[in-house]
Amino acid sequence: MSADEISTVLDTAAAFKAVGARAIKKVPALRGKTVINLFVEPSTRTRISFELAAQRLTADVINFTAEASSLKKGETLRDTARNLEALNADIIILRHGAAGAPHFLSQFLNASVVNAGDGAHEHPTQGLLDVYTIRDKKGRVAGLNVTILGDILYSRVARSNIWALLKLGANVTLCGPSTLVPRVFEQMGCKVTYDIQEAIENADVINLLRIQHERQRQTMFPSIGEYTSLFGLTKARLGMTQPGVLIMHPGPINRGVEIDSEIADSNQSVILEQVTNGLAVRMAVLYLVNGGKGTSEIMGTVGGSKSRLTP
Amino acid sequence: MSADEISTVLDTAAAFKAVGARAIKKVPALRGKTVINLFVEPSTRTRISFELAAQRLTADVINFTAEASSLKKGETLRDTARNLEALNADIIILRHGAAGAPHFLSQFLNASVVNAGDGAHEHPTQGLLDVYTIRDKKGRVAGLNVTILGDILYSRVARSNIWALLKLGANVTLCGPSTLVPRVFEQMGCKVTYDIQEAIENADVINLLRIQHERQRQTMFPSIGEYTSLFGLTKARLGMTQPGVLIMHPGPINRGVEIDSEIADSNQSVILEQVTNGLAVRMAVLYLVNGGKGTSEIMGTVGGSKSRLTP
Amino acid sequence: MSADEISTVLDTAAAFKAVGARAIKKVPALRGKTVINLFVEPSTRTRISFELAAQRLTADVINFTAEASSLKKGETLRDTARNLEALNADIIILRHGAAGAPHFLSQFLNASVVNAGDGAHEHPTQGLLDVYTIRDKKGRVAGLNVTILGDILYSRVARSNIWALLKLGANVTLCGPSTLVPRVFEQMGCKVTYDIQEAIENADVINLLRIQHERQRQTMFPSIGEYTSLFGLTKARLGMTQPGVLIMHPGPINRGVEIDSEIADSNQSVILEQVTNGLAVRMAVLYLVNGGKGTSEIMGTVGGSKSRLTP
Repeated sequence: MSADEISTVLDTAAAFKAVGARAIKKVPALRGKTVINLFVEPSTRTRISFELAAQRLTADVINFTAEASSLKKGETLRDTARNLEALNADIIILRHGAAGAPHFLSQFLNASVVNAGDGAHEHPTQGLLDVYTIRDKKGRVAGLNVTILGDILYSRVARSNIWALLKLGANVTLCGPSTLVPRVFEQMGCKVTYDIQEAIENADVINLLRIQHERQRQTMFPSIGEYTSLFGLTKARLGMTQPGVLIMHPGPINRGVEIDSEIADSNQSVILEQVTNGLAVRMAVLYLVNGGKGTSEIMGTVGGSKSRLTP
Repeated sequence: MSADEISTVLDTAAAFKAVGARAIKKVPALRGKTVINLFVEPSTRTRISFELAAQRLTADVINFTAEASSLKKGETLRDTARNLEALNADIIILRHGAAGAPHFLSQFLNASVVNAGDGAHEHPTQGLLDVYTIRDKKGRVAGLNVTILGDILYSRVARSNIWALLKLGANVTLCGPSTLVPRVFEQMGCKVTYDIQEAIENADVINLLRIQHERQRQTMFPSIGEYTSLFGLTKARLGMTQPGVLIMHPGPINRGVEIDSEIADSNQSVILEQVTNGLAVRMAVLYLVNGGKGTSEIMGTVGGSKSRLTP
Repeated sequence: MSADEISTVLDTAAAFKAVGARAIKKVPALRGKTVINLFVEPSTRTRISFELAAQRLTADVINFTAEASSLKKGETLRDTARNLEALNADIIILRHGAAGAPHFLSQFLNASVVNAGDGAHEHPTQGLLDVYTIRDKKGRVAGLNVTILGDILYSRVARSNIWALLKLGANVTLCGPSTLVPRVFEQMGCKVTYDIQEAIENADVINLLRIQHERQRQTMFPSIGEYTSLFGLTKARLGMTQPGVLIMHPGPINRGVEIDSEIADSNQSVILEQVTNGLAVRMAVLYLVNGGKGTSEIMGTVGGSKSRLTP
């Protein structure tokens, strides 16, 4: 995805965000289209965000929440997906525990495949909603100092953020326990530091990652308490930052672990706006993969006569 | 809720009940609104009734069936609910095992919160559908003798019924094993008796509660068989009642336990009509919490031109 | 079901299949109707096919996925179904582990009951989609040699296929391990053979059944490997068949067991088309049980003005 393509998604999302604030939160853009949520790995939040996005575009949406056990290996995933495509699915949203699964599917399907998170690899709509939120709040992304704090190694959120932020010209700093923030990320163009003060003192944005117990094969840090004391965003540490620093978190938050409860609920926190923006970004992605032509066409739809807007 | 407010809901429900009998069972009252069924405690029946109510009002509806284990303590429930609100949810329907959970949520959400049952505390739409059914069948509620029979102590159905019935001027008698029907209910204005003949001989309505095994921490009566022999509504006991007595039950019924199978299927039983009325009452509640203005406005919608009625 | 009735369903399905290929895959035929998927036995594929069929007819659809454990015995199934009917359900789609369950329900419900598979008994929409696929590909069913290969004894797919094929005048040959293909099927008018070469060499259509481990109480054949070596459709065996033989399978396929992977993906295989046709057949069935009048009326709807076609 180029910087231009990212910008198209963000501009389109801005138009759809306005739809969410209307009395009738619905546009007919995907009327009569079939969207299938194929969630091989469970994720209630992401599933609901995509389901609502599809509903607000007036698509028909089906949830297919497969247990990983019944879909063994790539070949069977392929057969499952081809069966869904045979139901005239227009868009298959795939959440899968294995890196590369959406790319694998997209190679032989005519239906569009949207990646809703694949293992520790990528979670593109999360990355897009994060840069959307930064651009929305700060007016730009280029030149900003963005610090990502926590479990970088196992985080698809971090990976998708880093790509999008670097494409749009931000300065990205990664910080956390050395076992979770390998120096290899420097080759992507990030700064890596294990000193939290250095990481946050000049940050315009601090993105805190959730401690992902479930993705860690070995214990990568001594204890939750030690993590908090070394890298948690406490009130004391917030005092070291620039005024106006934006506090982000992909959710669900562990209050008192990565972030103090008061900070999560403060004016600097945009955690709930990220949720709102995520829905708008997902509407934009579904709209665009279905052949939508970007902002001007949506604005036409959004601003059309009442009869065009109703499902 | 005042008697007037209850009457508004019942009148509104009457209008919506007529919608359920139409060829096209749908009105556009909540078109483009988002309704989320947040069921922390499972309840397929209540969930389906609310889901259909939302669909018939042309809302978009999402099911969020959380396992109680993933939503620990009030604070995290708050975060979950605020995340749902951030998705521009208009109405959150909450079923929860803890008394007071919906009230707790409503204190900090802008979205409307509808209580779909909270522990042993309340189940307001069940209470409303029961008084709706009584008013529909008997023409009034005030002055009627209504007996509630069974497990009063652990029943949110009983609690919600008692409040609504007393507000509307009914005479409420409670009967059941003394361990399940404490005398403290007399302070609310009910009559309490442990003599089933006394409880039913003058009743206009008998509302049988389901034996709720799952809510009883200790064994409160010796056995199911003993419960049936002492308090089950058998044909012999039905012979002691007034002609035309209405037999109600919130379902699902335990045939041969609280009620003889023949009585459940008799003309005096309105058990299935309660189900039908429950859907109408839930449509009314969703409509009213969303700012609907009561009967006249709905009637306008319901009786409007065909194009206004179709989704 | 008479041959004429089967033909009506197939003709209706042909009209609906065309809807699935449109940009807006939706007709208003069941607008404002309530369809309930009552799946007492789980089946994600069949559930999704019916759910999409209902959505494309613009019905409101509810999934009720009951665990068999909570619905004990026929009487309680009856109460569950009557409760659903009391929600003004127009059509109840029932999947159940017990043979005859849909017939049992239909005896006392006013709502239409559609059988989505009952134990090892029948799976009528599967039978219909299979004859639809044969007619679509071969231009006719009468006089064709159709071989069904595999686990006939425990297969509702086989049973429903046999009835429909014989009604429409096909010559049906059954083949598989003798423990799974009892001679009693000859009384229905089928040919039974245990010689795979004889079974396939003159076939116009070969329908491979999935080895249904879960339905077999005892081990009916020594091993999967032995099944494959004796009855699997390998490339070598395909060489014994007529050119143009149609390869069918109800899915999900066990690659390398009933069928070689290459054959499943070949031009002769219509396995994915069966999925597409299944959706069209289910739309037809829902449409017809709701009182639709067959092809001409649908064609009118399908070919009508845009405003009639949009939900």
